[in-house]
Amino acid sequence: MPHTDVITDISGHFDMADRPIQARAVNRTILVTGTGIDAGRLEALKARGYDVRQPSPVLTEEQLTHELQGVVAYLHGGEERASRAALESAKATLKVVAFLGVGYETFVDVAAADDLKIVVTSTPGAARDSVATFTVGQIINANLRIFQQYGNRYPDWTSAEELPSELSVRNVGIVGMGVIGSRIAEMLRVAFDANVAYYSRTPKRHLERSLDMKFMELPDLAEWSDILVVMVPGNDTTTSMIDDEVLGRARPGTILINTARPSVVDPVALYASMKADRVHLAVFDGFYGKDSEAAVRLLQDFGSRMFVTGHVASHTRQAMDRMLDQAVMSIENLLGGNADPYAVGAADRIPEP
Amino acid sequence: MPHTDVITDISGHFDMADRPIQARAVNRTILVTGTGIDAGRLEALKARGYDVRQPSPVLTEEQLTHELQGVVAYLHGGEERASRAALESAKATLKVVAFLGVGYETFVDVAAADDLKIVVTSTPGAARDSVATFTVGQIINANLRIFQQYGNRYPDWTSAEELPSELSVRNVGIVGMGVIGSRIAEMLRVAFDANVAYYSRTPKRHLERSLDMKFMELPDLAEWSDILVVMVPGNDTTTSMIDDEVLGRARPGTILINTARPSVVDPVALYASMKADRVHLAVFDGFYGKDSEAAVRLLQDFGSRMFVTGHVASHTRQAMDRMLDQAVMSIENLLGGNADPYAVGAADRIPEP
Repeated sequence: MPHTDVITDISGHFDMADRPIQARAVNRTILVTGTGIDAGRLEALKARGYDVRQPSPVLTEEQLTHELQGVVAYLHGGEERASRAALESAKATLKVVAFLGVGYETFVDVAAADDLKIVVTSTPGAARDSVATFTVGQIINANLRIFQQYGNRYPDWTSAEELPSELSVRNVGIVGMGVIGSRIAEMLRVAFDANVAYYSRTPKRHLERSLDMKFMELPDLAEWSDILVVMVPGNDTTTSMIDDEVLGRARPGTILINTARPSVVDPVALYASMKADRVHLAVFDGFYGKDSEAAVRLLQDFGSRMFVTGHVASHTRQAMDRMLDQAVMSIENLLGGNADPYAVGAADRIPEP
Repeated sequence: MPHTDVITDISGHFDMADRPIQARAVNRTILVTGTGIDAGRLEALKARGYDVRQPSPVLTEEQLTHELQGVVAYLHGGEERASRAALESAKATLKVVAFLGVGYETFVDVAAADDLKIVVTSTPGAARDSVATFTVGQIINANLRIFQQYGNRYPDWTSAEELPSELSVRNVGIVGMGVIGSRIAEMLRVAFDANVAYYSRTPKRHLERSLDMKFMELPDLAEWSDILVVMVPGNDTTTSMIDDEVLGRARPGTILINTARPSVVDPVALYASMKADRVHLAVFDGFYGKDSEAAVRLLQDFGSRMFVTGHVASHTRQAMDRMLDQAVMSIENLLGGNADPYAVGAADRIPEP
């Protein structure tokens, strides 16, 4: 059917018979956002009689609010923020927000969902190997400065001082020792024989023994590390966790690898430490919002010492499949009136039928 | 003392007292070439009364011939070729060429050295961890296409098809199972759980068991591999070892990682396989000579699918120190009239006093 450009831009607003969605039975629709979603894995939902609505990315809050109308479950695989306002607008029908990944706190207002009795789930563990492998790759890249060597077809070392050191003589400090942090530690120990220490809210004594690494308080860890790796969930507690107090202790030439959410590192503190060359290289997967003045200055003044990718560490076929399967299972569980092991926030709550 | 520009360009031609070197005792001088050499590690030679001559890189054949006059040992750490003509010109004094690294056959005419009774040594094993770590980093980079993601500050995946696969479901074929090849295999198995198979002139049955990997003939390995890693010495036997017969069997989308000498991969065969997209990405550390027409065409037509660095895989502080210490020890051994365990070519020959 011919729609105007404006309407086709945000697809899924008409059903097969071209009736506006508002006119249909509202509790059979599932909203799926994000790219890289294998539609085949949503078949289980369709087989149970659900319609799947997949609008084009990237959604503004207004577009999200619009897409959420009449939706019973929302599989969040995009970069949009499920705000209180958006969730509130859908409260008549919405029972479940299944977040694809672990960093849900950045993308879903969990407190609002709790208030609205919407259950939020995540997919812990599914991207463990992807994110850990990506992070170890970036550790090698930064430590050997591989990304600065690309395109040099002929040897390009000019003095003895410029030679990097092997991982086996480097101190790698890991901030956060969850499923991903511990997998990174394991890779660094078993394959590369790096010296590893860590900080975690709760010390993990069994890992200290099995991986031969020690616990340190965060500022001490920053001082000890040649390479400081940040791998904690992004939430209110961890925002700006890597601040002046931490980076002020960093030794000159430190490499900072942040494959957690950018907000975990305070951009103003990072700027100061890069200016002082305490942090010499900074690697980010995903970056501060486009409106962050500090972020713009970082790239302007230290761009050649910053290596940024667009939140892609978890984006492998296998991780996406595992996350998607897990999220679909959570939706089926919860819409079927059962508890779900991956519920977060006001966990274990079964949505009202 | 004021010298003309031409003479100061190739330093070391005058001794401390400004006498031309030809006038001095000729058998106390050691030529050291290359960048990144830690002069402190040459002290053992100086303590034994040797003069160390360190000209600026990069040497032409003519410059090398000039520098070699009156030299008793030549520590080769540069990118120059020690040709028959250059070695022959120094035969009156030259006893030892100590090559810094393992790929000596590309840089030293060993047959000529044998004819001239000049002992050639190399430093096997010293750069094992550096080269293996660099190679594993490049495997991760190419497999996850990290280098194509740099500079994308915001998520940049456009369809499900574009997602890379985790190493744990990838077939990695390793060509060459020496000290470095086996270290790469170990890293891939213990840290990343990749499927590994290999080709080697001599099958390594004990490694097949300990690392759970299988032997394949080279064309079969090319067909089996998602990622084909080349790690063999560069010499007459291995030149163009990766040819049409091998690459013709590669599956569509293959990633080729060559951290061996570029000449091991036939550039014309590579061009054909990249054109057919059998080889989708090619990673080289060091590239074909500037006069190679095939190499120019490769970069011109497939530059965005080629990731080239300038022969830097072995360039870590620790590897250089180990190589340098080993080379210095070989020089001391041989000039002292002893055999050396790292002699190659007409091995175990003790130079005439």
